Amino acid sequence: MTADAKVSKQQALNDFNAVYPILRDEMLAEVKKYNMPENAYNWFKESMDYNVPGGKLNRGLSVVDTLRILKGSSITEDDLFKARILGWAVEWLQAFFLVADDLMDQSVTRRGQPCWFRREGINLVAINDSFLLESCIYIMLKKHFKAESYYVDLLELFHEVSFQTELGQLLDLITAPEDDVDLNRFSPAKHQFIVIFKTAYYSFYLPVAMAMMMAGVKDEAAYNQAREILLPLGEYFQVQDDYLDCYGDPAFIGKIGTDIQDNKCSWLINQALVKVTPEQRKVLDEHYGKRNAESEAKVKEIYKELDLESVYRVYEDQSHKHISSLIEQVDESKGVKRQVFYEFMNKIYKRTK
Amino acid sequence: MTADAKVSKQQALNDFNAVYPILRDEMLAEVKKYNMPENAYNWFKESMDYNVPGGKLNRGLSVVDTLRILKGSSITEDDLFKARILGWAVEWLQAFFLVADDLMDQSVTRRGQPCWFRREGINLVAINDSFLLESCIYIMLKKHFKAESYYVDLLELFHEVSFQTELGQLLDLITAPEDDVDLNRFSPAKHQFIVIFKTAYYSFYLPVAMAMMMAGVKDEAAYNQAREILLPLGEYFQVQDDYLDCYGDPAFIGKIGTDIQDNKCSWLINQALVKVTPEQRKVLDEHYGKRNAESEAKVKEIYKELDLESVYRVYEDQSHKHISSLIEQVDESKGVKRQVFYEFMNKIYKRTK
Ligand SMILES: [Mg+2]
Ligand SMILES: [Mg+2]
Ligand SMILES: [Mg+2]
Ligand SMILES: [Mg+2]
Ligand SMILES: [Mg+2]
Ligand SMILES: [Mg+2]
Repeated sequence: MTADAKVSKQQALNDFNAVYPILRDEMLAEVKKYNMPENAYNWFKESMDYNVPGGKLNRGLSVVDTLRILKGSSITEDDLFKARILGWAVEWLQAFFLVADDLMDQSVTRRGQPCWFRREGINLVAINDSFLLESCIYIMLKKHFKAESYYVDLLELFHEVSFQTELGQLLDLITAPEDDVDLNRFSPAKHQFIVIFKTAYYSFYLPVAMAMMMAGVKDEAAYNQAREILLPLGEYFQVQDDYLDCYGDPAFIGKIGTDIQDNKCSWLINQALVKVTPEQRKVLDEHYGKRNAESEAKVKEIYKELDLESVYRVYEDQSHKHISSLIEQVDESKGVKRQVFYEFMNKIYKRTK
Repeated sequence: MTADAKVSKQQALNDFNAVYPILRDEMLAEVKKYNMPENAYNWFKESMDYNVPGGKLNRGLSVVDTLRILKGSSITEDDLFKARILGWAVEWLQAFFLVADDLMDQSVTRRGQPCWFRREGINLVAINDSFLLESCIYIMLKKHFKAESYYVDLLELFHEVSFQTELGQLLDLITAPEDDVDLNRFSPAKHQFIVIFKTAYYSFYLPVAMAMMMAGVKDEAAYNQAREILLPLGEYFQVQDDYLDCYGDPAFIGKIGTDIQDNKCSWLINQALVKVTPEQRKVLDEHYGKRNAESEAKVKEIYKELDLESVYRVYEDQSHKHISSLIEQVDESKGVKRQVFYEFMNKIYKRTK
């Protein structure tokens, strides 16, 4: 049975969402098998329902989208079901990281509701909840992919990407701790390492690599090509996020930026630090990462003096050209298609408009 | 090349310890490959050196001991090296759990030094450090076992045992939170679930199962046999630990017990709750989990009235008989040997004397 390669966005989202309860119930069945006492069973259920669905699901959906491109009209319903499972595995991975990240950052809200650890009676138990969310990934992979020739590749990919993400988190945590501002620790090279490791591997490379495995791509060169495009794309995506945090319209981006007050190792501060005069640097040292609007305004003034908006426009333009040329050079005979990357690019570069 | 099957305990420990720096350096090489900035590289190195070695290493050593029994005089130097790596993988897993457990329990010391999260500038970053310790396991398995026929079995075993340990932690955390005493949540059944899941799977079953995989045991029945003996053995081990916390000689066990003051879901309190009169129960409700010596003394008085020492002696005796009979029933033709379990038993039952 082959499935329609073209479906509406809404239909794709509905089909994707329909798989969540199936997987959630499989996880719960696993726990039931062990005769887990009811209080813990219910806790685990609530932790999944609160933390796994409810995001934008871009990462999960991109597994399905990529597989549709790679397999074209030969795609089957079984392919789609499996791709959705892998998509949810990425969403579970993200839940694992976000539950822990919010606790480490002492954040207040996530997706418009209180962070999980802030709910009554949870706090540090959220650490173990994050572990459990990670463990679910391997339960679903074993259940649905053990018979596939690429099963070990999937396991190793999740292990590797988890490690990369954790390295990015580590560097972020010790370079920009909220309560200890020291701009000497920042540099454009560190910013690049953080965003590629903390975000790009799991958000951009992981979903595409999994779809490639499903499509039967075996040549390592194809995975290297994909990585060489998707990591810079992920980097651009995060630079854009950093830029919009300061210059975006809150009504449009849906939140008020707090990167300056939060002492974030943002692209903007790193660009500023490269260009500042000693006098401007003194202002940044005094006011960056301070939790008040006056300090924030002083920092924004320096950004304005340094014309970071123009620096961003130049970066955006160069990045677009660079990635476009990388995509043009893709050797489709290795098993990956240019269209995969063009679709990503269109989604992301559109976002600024 | 075959290796001597009998070596002194000290020699076995030295040989095991010699493998730690090799693995640690392999992890660091992995990070160097990514051009990780120096501050994060050093942090990761310190986290491993502080948290992985320095324990009693019983779990790690038991992989080697078990393989020696299973392979006898045919054991090679390469077998021993691989068994030591798997032993260290268990120690890394334990480090992952202990770093997080100490933070969740807000513990003060571990192995005679401050808990990792209590060191200057660490605190919640320890969460991500624990993730990284876990990721190391899969790096070492890939590096040293990818070519083995049992590679996937090893990966799945670590996934499964991690999940089981996390389920035990969850139940422990929500049944006996330090700051919210409610003895109604306790029961012998919950105590049993907690100790089997939180401790027995990773401390007893995991090391033996890995040695069996290395020895080429394929029959699932053999793993089931091992599990059916090692889980009760692990349960007994923890009951003994709970007992000694209250009745052991601090000079002998090396620490002063704090389970009563810490509101621990200990074997003793669960046995007490089964036997108490309503009057005694009122005393327990009032004084269990309170952080003062008078309350602790009141609880110990009830334990004395209920003669829990005798209850323990009976349990110990029954457990010893039960496990001995399970071992006698082992079908050695499936690939596992009685001697493996007798050695565990001797180590553990000796401990009380
Ligand atoms: Mg955060
Ligand atoms: Mg963070
Ligand atoms: Mg942002
Ligand atoms: Mg503890
Ligand atoms: Mg604990
Ligand atoms: Mg104890």
